[in-house]
Amino acid sequence: MSSDNSLEQLADVIESRKLANGGDPEKSYISRLFSKGNDAILKKIGEEATEVVMAAKDGDARKLTNEVADLWFHCMIALSAFDLRPADVIAELRRREGLSGLEEFALRKAQQRDKDGE
Amino acid sequence: MSSDNSLEQLADVIESRKLANGGDPEKSYISRLFSKGNDAILKKIGEEATEVVMAAKDGDARKLTNEVADLWFHCMIALSAFDLRPADVIAELRRREGLSGLEEFALRKAQQRDKDGE
Amino acid sequence: MSSDNSLEQLADVIESRKLANGGDPEKSYISRLFSKGNDAILKKIGEEATEVVMAAKDGDARKLTNEVADLWFHCMIALSAFDLRPADVIAELRRREGLSGLEEFALRKAQQRDKDGE
Amino acid sequence: MSSDNSLEQLADVIESRKLANGGDPEKSYISRLFSKGNDAILKKIGEEATEVVMAAKDGDARKLTNEVADLWFHCMIALSAFDLRPADVIAELRRREGLSGLEEFALRKAQQRDKDGE
Repeated sequence: MSSDNSLEQLADVIESRKLANGGDPEKSYISRLFSKGNDAILKKIGEEATEVVMAAKDGDARKLTNEVADLWFHCMIALSAFDLRPADVIAELRRREGLSGLEEFALRKAQQRDKDGE
Repeated sequence: MSSDNSLEQLADVIESRKLANGGDPEKSYISRLFSKGNDAILKKIGEEATEVVMAAKDGDARKLTNEVADLWFHCMIALSAFDLRPADVIAELRRREGLSGLEEFALRKAQQRDKDGE
Repeated sequence: MSSDNSLEQLADVIESRKLANGGDPEKSYISRLFSKGNDAILKKIGEEATEVVMAAKDGDARKLTNEVADLWFHCMIALSAFDLRPADVIAELRRREGLSGLEEFALRKAQQRDKDGE
Repeated sequence: MSSDNSLEQLADVIESRKLANGGDPEKSYISRLFSKGNDAILKKIGEEATEVVMAAKDGDARKLTNEVADLWFHCMIALSAFDLRPADVIAELRRREGLSGLEEFALRKAQQRDKDGE
């Protein structure tokens, strides 16, 4: 099964945990985050991003994998709160890859910043 | 390669941009990040996570999609710097989903924190 | 003004850079951030917090000092955007210190989280 | 009492909570963070920075003051772990303010980035 399909399956699980879909905050961690509201979800994204940075600084590949998994998982809960799916994110990534010259544009900007001493 | 394997395809592109694989920092944004080193990549993860939070606070679904795409893209560059793939992250997510009782365990901890007034 | 009131002095400088106070985005970095709006200021806070974490992980005391200075500086610009002063933050810190039992309360919550395996 | 003196007093309290100075993780939140190690302190910095961003997005001045207080408090614990003081951070801020032309230098770099469409 492809990576993308796995994300979509996980997104289905997350969707089913919404309170409107019968999710129970007493039984599901995801339902509980939904019941606490968007700020609780966003706070987790800030936390997990910091843990990704620390795992990478430790040079610990196993920990990095786990922390990126935590970060993406909580991003998917945030997406779900806005009725978005991982497929929307992946479509955006594909769109950029397909835009010829996009990477070159990002590059020229970044080179200019370097020239300026940033 | 099937169309739903987009993350793996993007990971292949990132891999090809490594300096050891002929990536040219003068031509590729990704090669340039690799040439600047891990701290430059990790700094982008902190930046993009903040932008995800701001987009969600704005209630702007289009912006949220774009910022999550930016965040995941830079996470994939960090993974590649450690010779990891999105498939490793997704295997970890699937492993957790398969562990019965995992969500319930996370839930009990979170409920206890609530009881303590956190 | 006494020499040990540096944060308040710096807050005065920041205040003077507001556009309404004659600050010129062509001449002042602070005025320029104000002209770009709150999101630009907040994005810097996310960036600088990540750099604090990285400097500490490097065990580099000089870099840590610089990055905390950057973080506090941008926090003061955010405070100023809301017509707040460092003195407001410090009054809050003193208030907490004065509340007997506060640290013990935070402690009991944190101990409970540990017991739950967090 | 000046803002800076209040920070130094708080730094004295933090210093006294170090385990080597008799701090007891069973009685003090700060001692407990020290006993958990630097990663626990740094994780709090990432969390609190995210909460500063969210409070500002809410336009809630009271919450912003509280969250900046939390962020600075945990920065001071990180400084203490490296035997640094708020005075070191403030000296760095004063040094920059004293460097004529510094703000103009930061400005020119930022203007160039704008011109490049960043």
